[in-house]
Formats: sequence, structure tokens, C-alpha cells
Amino acid sequence: MPTGGCRSLNWPALEEILPRAVATESPFLKQLLDHVLYGGKGLRPTLVRVCAQFGPYDPTEVNRVAVAVELVHLASLIHDDILDGATIRRYRPALHCLYGSVPAVLTGDYLFATAFGLLAQSPRAILNIVAATVRTMCEGEIEQRSVSEPDERTYLDLIGKKTASLISAACRCSGILCHLKRSGQENLARFGWHLGLAYQMADDLLDLLGHPEELGKPCHQDLSRGIITLPVLRFLELVPHADRWREKISRGLTPEEMEEIIVAVQSLGCCEYARERVREQINLAFSALEDLPACSAQDELAWVASQMLSKIERLDYSGPAQKRAKPKEIAGSEAAV
Amino acid sequence: MPTGGCRSLNWPALEEILPRAVATESPFLKQLLDHVLYGGKGLRPTLVRVCAQFGPYDPTEVNRVAVAVELVHLASLIHDDILDGATIRRYRPALHCLYGSVPAVLTGDYLFATAFGLLAQSPRAILNIVAATVRTMCEGEIEQRSVSEPDERTYLDLIGKKTASLISAACRCSGILCHLKRSGQENLARFGWHLGLAYQMADDLLDLLGHPEELGKPCHQDLSRGIITLPVLRFLELVPHADRWREKISRGLTPEEMEEIIVAVQSLGCCEYARERVREQINLAFSALEDLPACSAQDELAWVASQMLSKIERLDYSGPAQKRAKPKEIAGSEAAV
Repeated sequence: MPTGGCRSLNWPALEEILPRAVATESPFLKQLLDHVLYGGKGLRPTLVRVCAQFGPYDPTEVNRVAVAVELVHLASLIHDDILDGATIRRYRPALHCLYGSVPAVLTGDYLFATAFGLLAQSPRAILNIVAATVRTMCEGEIEQRSVSEPDERTYLDLIGKKTASLISAACRCSGILCHLKRSGQENLARFGWHLGLAYQMADDLLDLLGHPEELGKPCHQDLSRGIITLPVLRFLELVPHADRWREKISRGLTPEEMEEIIVAVQSLGCCEYARERVREQINLAFSALEDLPACSAQDELAWVASQMLSKIERLDYSGPAQKRAKPKEIAGSEAAV
Repeated sequence: MPTGGCRSLNWPALEEILPRAVATESPFLKQLLDHVLYGGKGLRPTLVRVCAQFGPYDPTEVNRVAVAVELVHLASLIHDDILDGATIRRYRPALHCLYGSVPAVLTGDYLFATAFGLLAQSPRAILNIVAATVRTMCEGEIEQRSVSEPDERTYLDLIGKKTASLISAACRCSGILCHLKRSGQENLARFGWHLGLAYQMADDLLDLLGHPEELGKPCHQDLSRGIITLPVLRFLELVPHADRWREKISRGLTPEEMEEIIVAVQSLGCCEYARERVREQINLAFSALEDLPACSAQDELAWVASQMLSKIERLDYSGPAQKRAKPKEIAGSEAAV
């Protein structure tokens, strides 16, 4: 039964509905699925559910799309982890490390197919959006691997394709489900796009400055794979003898060099620069919200966006060298931002 | 414009329409796609097109589903080749051998998404069938890798999931597009199912007895990967000291042992046994055709099925040892079959 706008529902937990959606009679596949379904933050399904509150919606429809979008995300995570050689995900061994690449690739395929099967019941426009988004995500992943050092514009384009596209699609689809006009759908998509860019930039910052215990996976993974993210990209633009660093990154950094480059990136203000870009994107996301109908969902979405910011505000931008030299001043300037 | 039953159209060549369906702006992805789109036999799209002739159909609709089914097939081939470590496909290096596993996995994902995007324009029932089929194919691939020596029933179940399911789905979807009644759709699906089982059994026989030049890929790939197909499965049931062979297969056969086991499998009549099972399935496919409305498509489908049989009739079932010993008798008994 359709539910009027601006009312939050007691949504069933993802941990309950995801296993039902992917149910299989194959015992081995079930075991593989059990390993990957739990422990996610559920950002995308949350966005689908919250955005639907801008108009009257059918909770079953909304839930179906929320699940499908999460399954697409999970499938792409599983494949990316294989391709990146990542060993840890959500505090647990990556699927391919426990069971091998073969079952892991197939589990990803199974999740893609399940997602599209679910969307067969949804409006055609939604299936079109999600299919086009998966294509875009694949293009982004493939392009990222063929660009060794992107400029800032290319970096934004790549993280847009890889990450922001699905987050934006989640919001846009939800706008369709709650019968928003085209302009409302566009605003939701724009909110999701900027939130997605901020999310990936924050994730890249966390990979550089965060702690494994908080991330649920090792840090410095991008740099150790030779992937240049925004702070390092900025660093290579600013630092004299950048070619020396480029060479070290491309041949693989030693642990000492890793520590050295992170300190150098911090000391040139490149992490703060990246944080500033995250703030910009969050502000763009906020401004997309302003053009939507007044509704409690606006506050909920704004809260989601601000959470993203607060995660990276807690990071240490100063670097150990400066911290040891003049801890008080740095702490002071941090608090003033 | 819908076209009446039983009329064959001049269908556009797959080589023309596949590239349009997968068009991308990413130059690297385009290069990857160019490598995989050509050279296939196009069995599945042919079946979609021929089966549609049992009733009035819209050629655009039929073509769309034909392309989508072929893209699903191509995606699963690319992923399977990575997972199997296969190096040659259709006379050319496998995609992952030329470009690495990373772009290859993503190219497969891109093709899956493109297929489902196309099917967003088709009747919902078709999208449901294809999505469920991809899930079944993944289950089959995963299960195959967890069963070291299937019995004959399990072997049939696995090749049914891996191969027959998509061929059957292609026929069933086409029956929906040409507005056949449920029973007609079921008959087409049954035809495709038995044809698919025959196809995979014939493929397994060709892997054992065929020649690389004809196959467009190396032979003996199953056995060298420790995969037990029907002739070998039968052999292990019949041969004394089967455990000795099991052990050799599972630790990897030397070239001499490979030659030895193939001769042994032939000499115990296990390849003829497998050929007999192919014939049975082809006959079951023929009988499914009989229950369909009289139409020239019946002849075309029967021709497709008989082609499958004629490919394996040409194989050498006698083995080099017997051939050298008494070439005439063996040749005579072959011709009489």
C-alpha cells in the first residue's frame, strides 16, 4: 500500500532481507553468499529508503530497489577485491582469499543477475538506470587501470564513474518510486552524485591517513598498488623532483618510503587540500537538497552527508613530524577550521 | 511491425548489431570488446530467431533478445576462460591472456549489464527468465568445481545448469515473443534443454577426441584440468584399478598418461557410450519439436540439432591402437552406425 511522503517507516534490516533475495539451493554458493552479505554500512539502500520519503511510495517497491542496488554494490566489491588483490574487507578476509577467485567471480555474477532479476518487477526506467550505471562503473574501473597519473579532472571523472554513479542512481531511482517530477529526480541524482564524489574522496583520504582498526581493512592500499588519489596527485604537482616519487610509486614503495611520502604529502598541505575538496562536494550536495520539497527526509540526507565529513575531520592532517615539533599550534589551527 | 509465423527474415548479421549494442566511449573498453564480439557460431541468437517463426513476432523485439542472450553467453565465456585458465578461444588468445584478468572480468560484467539493459525493453517475463538462468549458470559453474567425480546424473545436472539452461531459455523467450501458448513455450524450452545437453556432451567428446584446428582451441582441456566428463566418468566406472587413474587425473596427467587414458577410454567403448547419450538427447529434442505447430521452423531446428550430431559422428571412436591393428573392420562398423 502506498505510503504518503515524509513518513519514515520501520524498514526491515538488510541482514534479514538480503539473504532471502539471494536464496540458492546450492550449499556451496550459500556459504559464499553468507560470507559477503553482512557487515556493510548499507549507504546505498539507506539512500533509496530515505529519498523515497519525498513523495508517496510503495514500501515493497522501495525495498526491492534498495536490495537490488546493494547487491550490485556487493557484486562490484567482490570483483574489485579480486582485481585489486585486496585481502581484507569489512574486518574479514576477502571472499577470494578464503575460497579462491573462481567461486568469487561467480558469486559476483550471481549477485548481478539477482539484482537485475529483482528489478524486472520495477518500473522499466529503473532497470535502465541501473544497467547503464553498471556499464559506467565498469568503464570507470577499466579506465582507472589504464591511467597511471590522472589530473584532478580525470580523477573526478574516474571516481564519478566508479562510485558516485551508483550512489546517484540509488537516489534517482528512489525519486522515480515516490513519483517526484523530473526536476525533483534530477535534484536527488545531483545530491547523490556530489555525495558519491565526497564519499570516494573521503575514502581515499582515509586510506592514506586512517587506521586499519577503524577502516576494517589495511590502509595505504591505493599507494601500494600504484593508484594515485587526490592528495598524492596534488603532492606530485607541488613537490620538486616529483619524477623521483613517481618512479618509486610505480616500482612499489618500501615501508620506509611509504611513511616518508605520507609525511611529505601531509607537510605540503595536500591532505587538507583534499579535505577542502570533500567539503566542496558536500556543500554541493546540500545545495541540491535545498531545491527539493520541504520534508524531514532533507534533514536525514543532510545528516548522512555531514557524517561523511565528520569521519575525515577526525583524521590527523599534520603528520607525525610537525606534530612532534609543535603539537599545540597545529591542534589549534585544526580546531579552528 | 509484427511478422506472421513461419516466415524467415533476412536478419542483420550479429557482427553488425553486437558492436552497436555494446557501444562505449571508453577507447580501452572498445578494444577489449572488439576482441570478443567476433567469431562465435551464434547458436543461441539463431535459436531465438528461428523459434520466433512459430507465431507472429516483432523482428526488433526478437533481435533485441537474440543479442541479449548472446551477450550473456559471451560474458560467461570470458569469465569461464579466466576461471579455467583457458588460453585460446575461437582460434584467438583468450581475452584475459592478452589484456590480463582485471579488464577481462570487467568486460564480462559490462556485457552482463548491457544484456540486462537491453532486456529492460522486453516483456518482464523474459527478463525474469534470463536473470534466473544466469543465476542457474553460476550455480552450475560453482557446483562443478566442488564435485571432483560426478555420477552420470550429477553430470547431466551440472551441464544442464551450465549450458542447457541458457539454450533452453533462448528458445522459451522466443516462444513468448511470438505469442505461443504456454504449452508451446514449454515445448520450445524442452527442445532447447535437450539440444543444450546434447551440445555440451558433444563438446566434451570433441575436447577428448577432436583436433585443435577444428575446435579453434586446444583439446584435452577438461582432463588436464581434472574435470571428469561423461566418457571418462563411464571409464572410471568400468576400468579395474580406477583409483590409480583417479589419482593420476587429480595430480595432473603427463602427456604420455594423457595419450594412454584416451586410448583406454576409447578401447572400453566409453566414447561410443557418450555418443549414444548425445543421440538420445537429440531424439528427445526432435520429439519436443513434434508437439509444436507445423511450420518450416521445425525443419530449421531439426537441421540445427542434426548438425550437432554430425559433428561428433566424424570423430574417431576406435583409438589409434585398434586402428593400427584392424583398420578396415573398425571403419566398417563406424559407417554402419
